[in-house]
Amino acid sequence: MNRPVVTFTDFGHEGPYLGEMRLAIAAHGPNLAVIDLMADAPEFDPMASAYLLAALLPRLPAQAVVLAVVDPGVGGEREPLVVEADGRLLVGPDNGLFEPTMRRAGGLRCWKIVWRPDRLSATFHGRDLFAPVAARLALGTPPEEAGCEAMPWPRRPGWPDDLARVIYIDRYGNCVTGLRAERVRPDARIVAAGQVLARARTFSDMPAGTAFWYANSSGLVEIAVARGSAASALGLSVGSLVE
Amino acid sequence: MNRPVVTFTDFGHEGPYLGEMRLAIAAHGPNLAVIDLMADAPEFDPMASAYLLAALLPRLPAQAVVLAVVDPGVGGEREPLVVEADGRLLVGPDNGLFEPTMRRAGGLRCWKIVWRPDRLSATFHGRDLFAPVAARLALGTPPEEAGCEAMPWPRRPGWPDDLARVIYIDRYGNCVTGLRAERVRPDARIVAAGQVLARARTFSDMPAGTAFWYANSSGLVEIAVARGSAASALGLSVGSLVE
Amino acid sequence: MNRPVVTFTDFGHEGPYLGEMRLAIAAHGPNLAVIDLMADAPEFDPMASAYLLAALLPRLPAQAVVLAVVDPGVGGEREPLVVEADGRLLVGPDNGLFEPTMRRAGGLRCWKIVWRPDRLSATFHGRDLFAPVAARLALGTPPEEAGCEAMPWPRRPGWPDDLARVIYIDRYGNCVTGLRAERVRPDARIVAAGQVLARARTFSDMPAGTAFWYANSSGLVEIAVARGSAASALGLSVGSLVE
Repeated sequence: MNRPVVTFTDFGHEGPYLGEMRLAIAAHGPNLAVIDLMADAPEFDPMASAYLLAALLPRLPAQAVVLAVVDPGVGGEREPLVVEADGRLLVGPDNGLFEPTMRRAGGLRCWKIVWRPDRLSATFHGRDLFAPVAARLALGTPPEEAGCEAMPWPRRPGWPDDLARVIYIDRYGNCVTGLRAERVRPDARIVAAGQVLARARTFSDMPAGTAFWYANSSGLVEIAVARGSAASALGLSVGSLVE
Repeated sequence: MNRPVVTFTDFGHEGPYLGEMRLAIAAHGPNLAVIDLMADAPEFDPMASAYLLAALLPRLPAQAVVLAVVDPGVGGEREPLVVEADGRLLVGPDNGLFEPTMRRAGGLRCWKIVWRPDRLSATFHGRDLFAPVAARLALGTPPEEAGCEAMPWPRRPGWPDDLARVIYIDRYGNCVTGLRAERVRPDARIVAAGQVLARARTFSDMPAGTAFWYANSSGLVEIAVARGSAASALGLSVGSLVE
Repeated sequence: MNRPVVTFTDFGHEGPYLGEMRLAIAAHGPNLAVIDLMADAPEFDPMASAYLLAALLPRLPAQAVVLAVVDPGVGGEREPLVVEADGRLLVGPDNGLFEPTMRRAGGLRCWKIVWRPDRLSATFHGRDLFAPVAARLALGTPPEEAGCEAMPWPRRPGWPDDLARVIYIDRYGNCVTGLRAERVRPDARIVAAGQVLARARTFSDMPAGTAFWYANSSGLVEIAVARGSAASALGLSVGSLVE
């Protein structure tokens, strides 16, 4: 029984990058189901991406193999990693991308990928290294037989449990933060760009143009302006602090 | 025999939204074929989207289940709907999105979705409500057994049969209107932004820079500038009137 | 045994175009595997697209059917073509898009597509003509039985073996050229926009802001600025000359 592969990258849908990675998966398992969860994770930003991935993870299939590539240090020192968190497998670079996921997981195991392909480009480990490993795991190969060695979880103790920053801005200008709404008091006010924002349940509750926050569909605090762009209206960008 | 699922949304390919909706379909039917017809339907604009969808529909597979989500009123009063039009099933909000489709259909049936998932987010019914229903219909479950109740077609008598506006602008700046070319005299002149445009058969007929209209590949009147952008050249945007 | 279909177009992911082409493939072969390699090939630019496609081809599956549509002359004089190059099949317009591929191929065969569909739109041969032929080839139908007639390779002797221009700019602003890195001396300096650039192995070798060139993951000379945009920093666009 194959596992589904779910991709999470900062490649964008532009260019041949996502397609080449999918071809690399297909080369190892032509019948594997692959779903692109997200191709515009915050680019060059493993920390913002990490809190986004951790929030999306609980809704992924219990058997998913997540191929997560936000990897500005590609070709440098960081290790390639496989993590098992609550039954799901995650494949990607050891740059903090899995830190909040690992911290929130019940069951956790960790491996270093020691296998290397015959041809490893300096800049595209997503295609050359991570995709083949993810495909083999999705086909049911245990990590130890897919070129991985058990290792302890490489912790990043300085990282917070929730990230009080904007971590993603969607096409409507809504600003997703790294704060889980369940950890915030229901009547809490969120301060962003000097403005104090009250909570709303949904967009249709609010008159056009009003800024507010709400628990988004991934359970994160999200800042929005009804029928407008919170990013432009409040001057927020990825990395902006919130309180 | 499964039916193919075809998605039509204003989510964009950006963000996790389309991916999460596809994961929700896969959760109910891992082997269902899903094709994304369009992820950039006119945003917040069920009316423009409706005339676009109606034009695209005749080329979809006869057995398609169309998961159509352009839903600015999510979380508000509008009903979730299933429509059967000429054998195809459409799933989405009752905000007019299916009005021209229903009006042009030979055979027509209509249901209200009364089923609700255990966890229904306030803002993402595409993932939580519409996708599971679409998946069950695609697996062959009749609407009545998929949590739907027959209801009369919720008409919008004020809407026109064809919409004399720009309803979509593609990446080349070509401006699609809601007018079916077959309902326009072949030698008709179209007026847009005060300019009178003649008809051409194809782009390669016209010298670079000339504005014209033609019957596009969906059968709609489309305004174009050969090797240029009609949107910039004529100052058109979605909603601009044409005559 | 079906062949996988790989799409390479300048349609963009926006609009219904890629979705409609995929629906046309599915209409002929519902179970065909389709992977979108690239939807943002240089638009209206068969020459730049041709050198990009030729560079990407060696990594595609040995049995791939490549559906390649960069076709500004659609509806005009150019012929529809099928090419077999080193075992892979390519389907698309005869406008030079396959010239470098054909020139680099060991084994080569060429056919003209004489079949026409019942309904052939003037502007969307990707959907109406090329997709059905690609689907039939992917299902194992020989070209001669899929409406094709053998013809000699339509050469373009004026085109170079490598194109000393920028042929693609990715979302990070990296500028891909049509020069194969293996044909350039390892210590060569590349001149772009009047600036002399040295070679680097990878991004992480270079301090932020430095412009350099490197052999990209497709084997092409690519001009980059570490953690910045080479396109903006150097003022490069698709078509810019390099030496």
